[in-house]
Amino acid sequence: MQSPDEPGLIYKITAVLFAHGLNILRNDEFVEPAGNVFFMRTEFAGAFDAGALGAALAGALPAAATVRLSDNRPQDVVLLVTKEHHCLSELLVRHAFGELNANIRAVIGNHEVLGPLTRQFGVPFHYLPHAERSREAHEAEVLAVLAGYRPDWVVLAKYMRILSPEFVAPYANRLVNIHHSFLPAFVGASPYAQAHARGVKIIGATAHFVNEQLDEGPIIAQRVIPTDHTRSAREMAQAGRDVEKIVLARALELVLDERVFVHRNKTIIFD
Amino acid sequence: MQSPDEPGLIYKITAVLFAHGLNILRNDEFVEPAGNVFFMRTEFAGAFDAGALGAALAGALPAAATVRLSDNRPQDVVLLVTKEHHCLSELLVRHAFGELNANIRAVIGNHEVLGPLTRQFGVPFHYLPHAERSREAHEAEVLAVLAGYRPDWVVLAKYMRILSPEFVAPYANRLVNIHHSFLPAFVGASPYAQAHARGVKIIGATAHFVNEQLDEGPIIAQRVIPTDHTRSAREMAQAGRDVEKIVLARALELVLDERVFVHRNKTIIFD
Amino acid sequence: MQSPDEPGLIYKITAVLFAHGLNILRNDEFVEPAGNVFFMRTEFAGAFDAGALGAALAGALPAAATVRLSDNRPQDVVLLVTKEHHCLSELLVRHAFGELNANIRAVIGNHEVLGPLTRQFGVPFHYLPHAERSREAHEAEVLAVLAGYRPDWVVLAKYMRILSPEFVAPYANRLVNIHHSFLPAFVGASPYAQAHARGVKIIGATAHFVNEQLDEGPIIAQRVIPTDHTRSAREMAQAGRDVEKIVLARALELVLDERVFVHRNKTIIFD
Amino acid sequence: MQSPDEPGLIYKITAVLFAHGLNILRNDEFVEPAGNVFFMRTEFAGAFDAGALGAALAGALPAAATVRLSDNRPQDVVLLVTKEHHCLSELLVRHAFGELNANIRAVIGNHEVLGPLTRQFGVPFHYLPHAERSREAHEAEVLAVLAGYRPDWVVLAKYMRILSPEFVAPYANRLVNIHHSFLPAFVGASPYAQAHARGVKIIGATAHFVNEQLDEGPIIAQRVIPTDHTRSAREMAQAGRDVEKIVLARALELVLDERVFVHRNKTIIFD
Repeated sequence: MQSPDEPGLIYKITAVLFAHGLNILRNDEFVEPAGNVFFMRTEFAGAFDAGALGAALAGALPAAATVRLSDNRPQDVVLLVTKEHHCLSELLVRHAFGELNANIRAVIGNHEVLGPLTRQFGVPFHYLPHAERSREAHEAEVLAVLAGYRPDWVVLAKYMRILSPEFVAPYANRLVNIHHSFLPAFVGASPYAQAHARGVKIIGATAHFVNEQLDEGPIIAQRVIPTDHTRSAREMAQAGRDVEKIVLARALELVLDERVFVHRNKTIIFD
Repeated sequence: MQSPDEPGLIYKITAVLFAHGLNILRNDEFVEPAGNVFFMRTEFAGAFDAGALGAALAGALPAAATVRLSDNRPQDVVLLVTKEHHCLSELLVRHAFGELNANIRAVIGNHEVLGPLTRQFGVPFHYLPHAERSREAHEAEVLAVLAGYRPDWVVLAKYMRILSPEFVAPYANRLVNIHHSFLPAFVGASPYAQAHARGVKIIGATAHFVNEQLDEGPIIAQRVIPTDHTRSAREMAQAGRDVEKIVLARALELVLDERVFVHRNKTIIFD
Repeated sequence: MQSPDEPGLIYKITAVLFAHGLNILRNDEFVEPAGNVFFMRTEFAGAFDAGALGAALAGALPAAATVRLSDNRPQDVVLLVTKEHHCLSELLVRHAFGELNANIRAVIGNHEVLGPLTRQFGVPFHYLPHAERSREAHEAEVLAVLAGYRPDWVVLAKYMRILSPEFVAPYANRLVNIHHSFLPAFVGASPYAQAHARGVKIIGATAHFVNEQLDEGPIIAQRVIPTDHTRSAREMAQAGRDVEKIVLARALELVLDERVFVHRNKTIIFD
Repeated sequence: MQSPDEPGLIYKITAVLFAHGLNILRNDEFVEPAGNVFFMRTEFAGAFDAGALGAALAGALPAAATVRLSDNRPQDVVLLVTKEHHCLSELLVRHAFGELNANIRAVIGNHEVLGPLTRQFGVPFHYLPHAERSREAHEAEVLAVLAGYRPDWVVLAKYMRILSPEFVAPYANRLVNIHHSFLPAFVGASPYAQAHARGVKIIGATAHFVNEQLDEGPIIAQRVIPTDHTRSAREMAQAGRDVEKIVLARALELVLDERVFVHRNKTIIFD
């Protein structure tokens, strides 16, 4: 639920739930001072008719409000990968043991190297090389395969291609990316080499939604681990991969659990 | 607000607030599955008559519910100390610069060494030595001085005396303690020496309410920092002090902001 | 290298290396004040004859010194598991992609459930059920299979059986275990349920060598992540698994890289 | 000790120490692959004549090597501040209780507000306002006061003025600064407001040496703490201050203990 804030919103919503015989298990609410926007996430128990409940809520709320009713069924996910396996294998293993509330429908790679791992877990792998075709043509191929799965979420699990705004648009706020983060940040190529040269003491990872500027969408999760001068750039990269995969898995868990709202360029997360 | 859970509680409470013209700024709610207890913390804007609002809420809620209305004024705090300065100085400095929503009314020490630091910040210091009197007699003296201040909260800022259940009882869930924590835990004297001998890699601190078993009350805040074999027991103790003071200050901030509920032996914290 | 401390040790060792034309790349040295024991780990470049170099070092050092020469070849590892997959899959994936300096020769399970995952990665799985036989008989079977592989290291990757001192003895300081850790610690069954009931704010994991008291051997690595009252015991367990697998993998990396010395009940780690 | 790397360096140095009857307590050594530079820090016990020992070491080492002999006496420190008290009070309290191996000789402020706190701890405060004079003139006044104390280290304890290269040059690698850090980094004014708008999940602090580009000198220490959308920009700033002061104190402890070497734009820290 997202709505312009006004007095009595919680009262009005909970009145509807009460009238429909639904019991609230957990309720989180937040008013974003910038923009005066009201966000609420409610977990409730009880049977309901989605049409009737939706209509009753719409009637009680401001016209600009949006409500999303969910029954918490597993959602469909497609992963995009390049050559690095760590995020992919993390998600495939969790999926294989029923720890993700999701169906990983397919993996799309612009290199072939992660095909065997993917198939070993019984998931289809689409090899769509980017070589010898234009960016537009390659993105069109990927979008076509994606469209066939109608995924709820697309995860860039170390997909090392810049995406055009045209690719991002149809999956706005449904496209999750992971990337390394440093204090301070490093712009340009070989960030681990730069971080090593600067002697950073901390390595981090940030999972975020992709918007039109690749690495600047709303942040979903972040975590860091310590490092020091004795680690080579290669060892720092290994530590970075450890953080990346855990942060990406955590971010995906949060979105699959419908705990994440996006407002302007930030997230409101009820975790 | 704390209440046995039943359908419609949020609806009933927010109806009362709406009827009194109060606008909810932030609302946190949690149902503890063990015991089926409902907890809610609401921040709202608007003028209210405490008597009328309290009566209206009481009328709307189950008989066993408890409601606490607050205007967020600074609360009164008394600190108990022994010889270590780090927690005391942290709180005195924050207090001096208006960063604690509290009045530190006094400091009571069973040693004299922290008197000068306390007075330097313009806070009364009571020296109540424990030597040459029984535990009962000493505790009675401390309780008498405390009673004169009628504090909302009593903070054991490295007070190194075991407290009797008789001392604790009148300040149940209003007595905050800080102590070092290790993975694994060490029982008995010289915990830093034991932790050093075991080669722990992490040092932590736990702020908690005191109940009848000194170190086993509900946990308010915890934090850790890394260590390794090159640190002497003395250096580990310094790192431990750094964590302790930040964790104690954070815990105090949470209770002063009325974000902490206690249920059985755990806390529900809306931070 | 481990030796009773005496003046000139570094000088004597480096003189031997210099005389053999070996160049030191990295040298770490530590004198443990308790026991006055000298530890040193040296990485050097250059070709050497192990017999001649070992003899020269032995001649230069106190009789009680021990020296281990290594060429950093992959070492042999066998894993013991029960039903939980997270540590096993973490290690199998790293192994499959060449990120562990080890050969995982086999996995032994007292349940059958992790057989398919193991075989999927091309590693032999031995199912040795503990049901309907004595502890002695079961341990004898496991030891017999282990002996066939002559492993350098045995990893308890969530092996949920208590080991007898007779089992542990032949693998002293070569048997690595992982277990959850809390602040404070919880003794007995269902630690996550206890930690949840106590409202801990931090979940940790400790990787350690196994000695005769199962969870009290020298600590190799520890890490923590934050939690709060909103997480169910089940969600806390998931977060605990995430930490456990990363900490176990890190600990194994440290021992495979020969960075870990054991002294009394602690580790000296040159990382 | 810092030197171009060549075979036998540790051997040659330890031979000199052995010949002078000095016993090594702890030795750390590192060869930086970029530039092939050898760094070593040795703690030893025993009486020595600095002139004779220095000459013997110089004779044993390459001409380009630099050696620094120290007897670990308290070093002189001057602090520069503006209006924020948290780093200043942290250092004054530690100093007052003998926890810093330093003499805080004076505090210089470009505002007057921190004078009372400083004097309360018996430390001289110099108020040198920047208003109504040129940057050059103001810096010249600060440099003149600094020069009178001949400090070993100058600490920018939240000194909010940009320093010119002329100011920095005479204190190269002896000028320590602290600043907030975010993932990702934010350039420009009001970083906490920017970080809040972006919804960062982590707040960090970096202590570093100042070089000619203010915030880009070699990093000494970094630490982070978690945050989330419920914290206002003001609360995030409080958490940021908590991290800043601990990180600055830790960095100062490292430099006072002579554990920090600078090489190009990074630090080698033997902690």
